[in-house]
Parts: sequence; structure tokens; C-alpha cells
Amino acid sequence: MTEIQTILARRERLLGPDNPLFYDEPLHLIRGEGVWLYDADDRRYLDCYNNVPCVGHCHPEVVGALCDQAKKLNTHTRYLHENILDYAEKLLAKFDDSLDRVTLACTGSEANDLALRIARINSGGDGFICTNATYHGNTTAVAQLNSIFEPIGGYAENIRMVPWPDSYRAQNDLDGEALADAYADAVQRAIESLAAAGIKFAGMLVCPIFANEGLPNIPAGYMQKAIGHVRAAGGLYIADEVQAGFGRTGTWWGHTWSSVIPDIVTLGKPMGAGHPISGVVARGELLDNYRRHEMYFNTFGGNPVSCAVGRAVINVIDNEGLVDNAAQVGAYVLREFRKLQMKHDIIGDVRGAGLFFGIDLVSDRATKTPDAAAARKIVNNMRDNGVLMSKIGEHDNVLKLRPPLCFSKDNADLMISTLDDVLAAA
Amino acid sequence: MTEIQTILARRERLLGPDNPLFYDEPLHLIRGEGVWLYDADDRRYLDCYNNVPCVGHCHPEVVGALCDQAKKLNTHTRYLHENILDYAEKLLAKFDDSLDRVTLACTGSEANDLALRIARINSGGDGFICTNATYHGNTTAVAQLNSIFEPIGGYAENIRMVPWPDSYRAQNDLDGEALADAYADAVQRAIESLAAAGIKFAGMLVCPIFANEGLPNIPAGYMQKAIGHVRAAGGLYIADEVQAGFGRTGTWWGHTWSSVIPDIVTLGKPMGAGHPISGVVARGELLDNYRRHEMYFNTFGGNPVSCAVGRAVINVIDNEGLVDNAAQVGAYVLREFRKLQMKHDIIGDVRGAGLFFGIDLVSDRATKTPDAAAARKIVNNMRDNGVLMSKIGEHDNVLKLRPPLCFSKDNADLMISTLDDVLAAA
Repeated sequence: MTEIQTILARRERLLGPDNPLFYDEPLHLIRGEGVWLYDADDRRYLDCYNNVPCVGHCHPEVVGALCDQAKKLNTHTRYLHENILDYAEKLLAKFDDSLDRVTLACTGSEANDLALRIARINSGGDGFICTNATYHGNTTAVAQLNSIFEPIGGYAENIRMVPWPDSYRAQNDLDGEALADAYADAVQRAIESLAAAGIKFAGMLVCPIFANEGLPNIPAGYMQKAIGHVRAAGGLYIADEVQAGFGRTGTWWGHTWSSVIPDIVTLGKPMGAGHPISGVVARGELLDNYRRHEMYFNTFGGNPVSCAVGRAVINVIDNEGLVDNAAQVGAYVLREFRKLQMKHDIIGDVRGAGLFFGIDLVSDRATKTPDAAAARKIVNNMRDNGVLMSKIGEHDNVLKLRPPLCFSKDNADLMISTLDDVLAAA
Repeated sequence: MTEIQTILARRERLLGPDNPLFYDEPLHLIRGEGVWLYDADDRRYLDCYNNVPCVGHCHPEVVGALCDQAKKLNTHTRYLHENILDYAEKLLAKFDDSLDRVTLACTGSEANDLALRIARINSGGDGFICTNATYHGNTTAVAQLNSIFEPIGGYAENIRMVPWPDSYRAQNDLDGEALADAYADAVQRAIESLAAAGIKFAGMLVCPIFANEGLPNIPAGYMQKAIGHVRAAGGLYIADEVQAGFGRTGTWWGHTWSSVIPDIVTLGKPMGAGHPISGVVARGELLDNYRRHEMYFNTFGGNPVSCAVGRAVINVIDNEGLVDNAAQVGAYVLREFRKLQMKHDIIGDVRGAGLFFGIDLVSDRATKTPDAAAARKIVNNMRDNGVLMSKIGEHDNVLKLRPPLCFSKDNADLMISTLDDVLAAA
């Protein structure tokens, strides 16, 4: 057996089959530094996928903060500690003034699970809207809002899934305001459907950039109209910033791309650059009212080590200008991807925000027929050529690129030229 | 304002009110080492409460493993890495051979949430039994099995709460086999009640030492009989080892105290000595069957850093003989607590397993009337005298002591003499 086969056999024996793995030839990674990952043969890969290590793999300032605090003290929030306060202050300063309270947990799933309860207690309702091509996490309650996998036991009656605002494959060839209206009308109809079923409406949980849906160019005015309907019906807007947040889109938050401030924001993945930390940021009255009804305590949430790490991540993003870098390198990459689109017919659409890109592959530009097989092949060929990426979208045909925020123009050039070669050979 | 008042004001402003805190005078802790915690004035406290830093606060081997791996690589399980395999092998070796698969997550709540779904898919049912004085975690689904706080929206129809097996305040003054039968009969009645409501039975989720209930001397034969009923009805036994596991009771697992091997075991708190790591260990067929029905992926779960930490924790427990230490020092403490019981009428009952103790305070030994006010006062007075502990139990009157596993006989003598003094002054 090769080394990889041995590892795969151990993995199946200890963890069981069906544990998700990337690539037809799985990668055995040993170390990481900045935008680079190295396998067991010390082969180098340009990481164009991992958003979690947002400041780059193993950033010395983040690792330093982790180690310094882990040597001193790691307890829970039933004792007082200033790390959680310093971190909360720094984090909340990145939001609109109305979002003035935070609760910390460990995973994005925990954050979304909690956000749903905050919305339930404050709305008095239990009806939720999400999109029809999404994933928000792995708890039992959050799995109800995942369209990608049907939850065990099936969907409950209180969930309505609406079409995500797809500007590329929009139904009826609408565009402009009519397109935004069409999608927002679907939200209104979902609210009415809940009411007709006697289910009081609680809110809408969406990624503000619709990352899992395929990162659309959101029709102008859509969020204002959709959330306008949500609020008119007494519901809350929960923005899932687990993927979109912390500078990913060239702004601090994905919701900044529309002019709608959420009622509740959930945070995760890049928050600790790999350290398990997540959070719910909300208008104070919402979180305080929740806490009057239910005790929420998370043993590891907000511990001094996690908060030291979270603070270091924000410091690095600020001090290294990574939000601006995401905007600038992101804009450059988008222009270059559009040039690739002119060369390669398979690229039906190119979309992006900051350092988050979707390249929509089609077998026919006229019919916009999604080409999932090509996406799979290209992702694997890119891996063989030393560039790591993945795919997403309702039709599983959208190349997904989401490198660490310290991604440089040189890194971008390598990624683009490799993709050009792989597309040419496909 | 004093320093503490300033911190409390910041805490309320940033985190909101109603965030749980210990002690009438909250503690502001700065550093920890072994069994000792130090406040901002460098005052030293003997930690007789914290089970999470099971190997002692800031153990150099655990911190070293954390830092070494954090400097190298921190990714997720969609790439191959040997840390998760080495750790899984080491962990599973601590269980009965039938428990041969593990899935890793970040918190005990996530582990219990997942365990419920594994039980649902394998039993084909949705009816669960828990006790009437318990807490299993903070997700929406797990909160349904918390008796301590009613979940938002109330309890669902599929939950039955049974009386916990209380040997001290047993109803009808039963003892011996009759007592075990009486409590196990309640489990059988709960199963029948689910059947009568048309709800298929899935299983029973319990802490195998009933820690939150008040750490009873479990009536001999109770677990065999209760779980016998569960299995006869097609249900699964989920042992919540989040508190009981990793040597706490002087054996590796709380379920070792009975002769019943669980179908599913959930792990958390001490697993990473403070680092957010949790897990579900189960019979392979159960976990594999679950994975055939639902994709479970946890971004931070099983990452190389968490697994390095988890492995270091097991190594330290083994190399420092901490399970034996818990058994030996625990037995000594129990004997000394029973001496205190002879001196102080307020001690109605003393219970313990390894380094986990419950001292049941009563206002009247004959009536066994719980004295929650005294428990609160004594916990606060112990804090003022430099010893940290808390309280638990259905009646909130049980002193809860659960020091790090490296707790020595000298540490025990200080704890016991301080408690003696505080009880004498009460």
C-alpha cells in the first residue's frame, strides 16, 4: 500500500466511511505558511480555497497570542477576564452602532443555532425563511435550514425555502428592478405561506453574499426589498457572516454590500483563523431579551485563549491592511478572470466580491447549461498543478476560490495562469 | 469604581446582563498552574471545581503540543492528517472493543446533538428519555433534554423525563433491589408512555454518574435494569461522559461503574483540557449508518491542533497516573468528608466517585430537607477562604467538588480543613 492508501484505510477503520474528503487523490498536508500549504513530499500548493486561516496559515502573531495566553490561563466566562471584554470591544467596533452586543461560542453552527432562538423569542414566532441552495451548519435545528442535504426526519413545517437571487440564470429573463422584485416577491409569498399555515413568522437567515448558492451578482435593491418584507411581517434579518465576514469581500462584512443592517449577525470560520471560536452579534435588546428567557452558557465560548486569538486576528487584518488587500487584489483577479472568460467558452459567468470568486462553468453559453463534470475535473487538475480550490453552487458547477486575505498580485498571477493552462487542456 | 466594578460594567455593556457568573463577589482570575488559580491581586485559590483543565491548569506538555502543532498546520479533515488518526486510535483504545468509531466536534453540546441524530436514524424513532434534574448542553435540540431550564417554545412531545435514581431521598423508603426496580420501572413507564402517544422510541440520554442530578449512590442494578428496558424496546443507551469521562471517577469512564456498555458515548469538557474539542464514540455500525443518511462535517472538529492537544491530554493522564490518583485521593477525601459529616449536622449525605464529590446539605437530618441557602453561603465562604467549588443537584443544595485530576493528598487536606472551618463558622 502507498502511504496515502495506508492513511485512508486507518481513516475508514477509525472514523468510518463517508467522511468527506477533497480531490480524487486526497491531499496529505503537513505544514502551512501564509498562502502556501506543503504535503508529505514537501510539495508546495498555492491555497486558493481556505478562508478559515484568513490571515494566512500559521500567522506568527496569531500563534504567538494563542501560546502566550495558553501558558497563562484558560478558563470560562463564569470568572471575570479582560480578554473577552477587550475582544468584544474590538469586534463590535467593526459593526454599525446598532449592533452592540456579542455572545461567543465555538462554531458557526452553534452561532446559527443560537441566532434562531434569539429570533424566536424576540419575534414570538417560529417560521423561518432560507434559500433553496444553502447550508448554514450541522446542528439538528440549523440542519432544517440546509437545502443541500435533507435533514434526518425530513423538513419541519416551519421552514420556507425561497429561490436565491440568481442574476445569471434568472427566470423569465428579467433584469434590473424587475428581477429584484421577482425574487423579493418570493420572500413575501413565503411569509404569506407561513401565515396561511398558522405559523408565526420569526425571520430570514441568509448569507448576505449567498456564498453557497453560487455567489451571485445580487440584483440591485433585492436585499432592501426582501428584508423590507421580512421586517414588515415582524421578522428579523439574521445575516450569516460565517463565510462572508472578516474582510473576505473587501469590506469588513458581507452585509455592507447592501445598505441593510441586520438585526442579528452570526460569525465563525475565519474569526480565530482556525481556532474554534464563533459568535452572535445583535442589537442589545434582542440578545438581552433572549437571556431573560433562557440561560446560555458555553463552556469553551469566550475563554481567554480564544479571545486572545480573536483579538490577534483582528489586529493582523487591520495592521496588514488585509481588507483593502482583499478589495484590490480581488478587483484585479476579477478583471483577469473576465479575460479568461473571453478565451474559454466553458466559462459562462464570472462573479466575485473581494477575495471570493465564483466561475460558473457551462457546456453551452446560450443555454447556460451547468457543467458539473467539468468543474470536478478542473478542480482536480488544478490540485495536480499545485493550486487548491473547490466548487459550489446549486448546480455544483461553480469554481470556488477563496484564498487567505494576504493573497498577493503575484499569487493571483500564478493562480490565473495555472487556471488558463488547465482550462486550455480540458 | 473598583476594578471589579469597572469590569462588571464593561461586561454588561458588551455582553449584556444575565451572563452567568460565579460567587457573590466574582473572581477576576489572571493565571493558573496545576491545581492553583491566581487572581489580579496574585491571591492564590485552590481549584476544587474545574474539571475541564483535568491535567491541571496550563500543563506544559499540553500547551507544548498546542503550540508546536499551531506553528505547523491547522486545517480541517477534508485533507488527510495523521494527528486525527493517532488520536482516534489512542482514544478508542480506552473503550470496550465494541465502541470502535469516533467523530470529532468542538463542544459537548455538539456531541450530544449529533448523538441524538445517530440514535434517531438507527432506531427509526424520535422518542427520548432523560432524567428530571439534568442538563446536557445548549443547542436547540439538546435543550429539549434539559430539565433545569425549560427550552424556548416549551418541551416537545417526544421527550419523557424520569426520576433520577436518588438513593438518599428515595420515595417510599425503598432500598436494595426494590429501589433499583422502582426507578427502572419509571423508565419502562416512560417507554410505554411514548408508545401510547404513537412516538417510536429512540433511546435514553443520561450521564452515567448522574452528575447534575446530584451524584447519587446509584442503586445497585439500576443501570442494568433501566438500560435493559431501553434495549428491549429497541432504544439506544447514550452515555453523556462530558463530565464523567477521562478519569474523573477514578476509572476512565463513568459508565465503567456499571457493567453496561453504552451504544453511544459523548465526550467534551476535559477532552482538550480547555481547548474546544469534543467527540462521539459509538459502535461502528451506528455511526456508519448515520453517515450513509446525513453528511456531517465540522469545520474545526478533528483539526490537527485539537488532535495534538487531545493526544497530549491522554498521554499526561497515562504518564502521570492520574486515573489512579483520582481513585486514591478520591477515596481518601470521601473518608475525610464522612468524618466531617459526623461533626456537622448540616451534612446530610456524602457521595463521590473518584475526584467528583457531592455533599448534600440539609436543615434537618431526619426530614432530609435540602438547605440551598446554606450551600450558597458555604460556596461563597469557601471562595473567601481561598478554595473554589460550586453547587448542584435537583434542590441546588449539593456542594460540588471536582478538582483537577492531579489533586494531591496535601491539596485534599487543605480543602477538607477549610471546609471544616467554614462549616463550623456557618
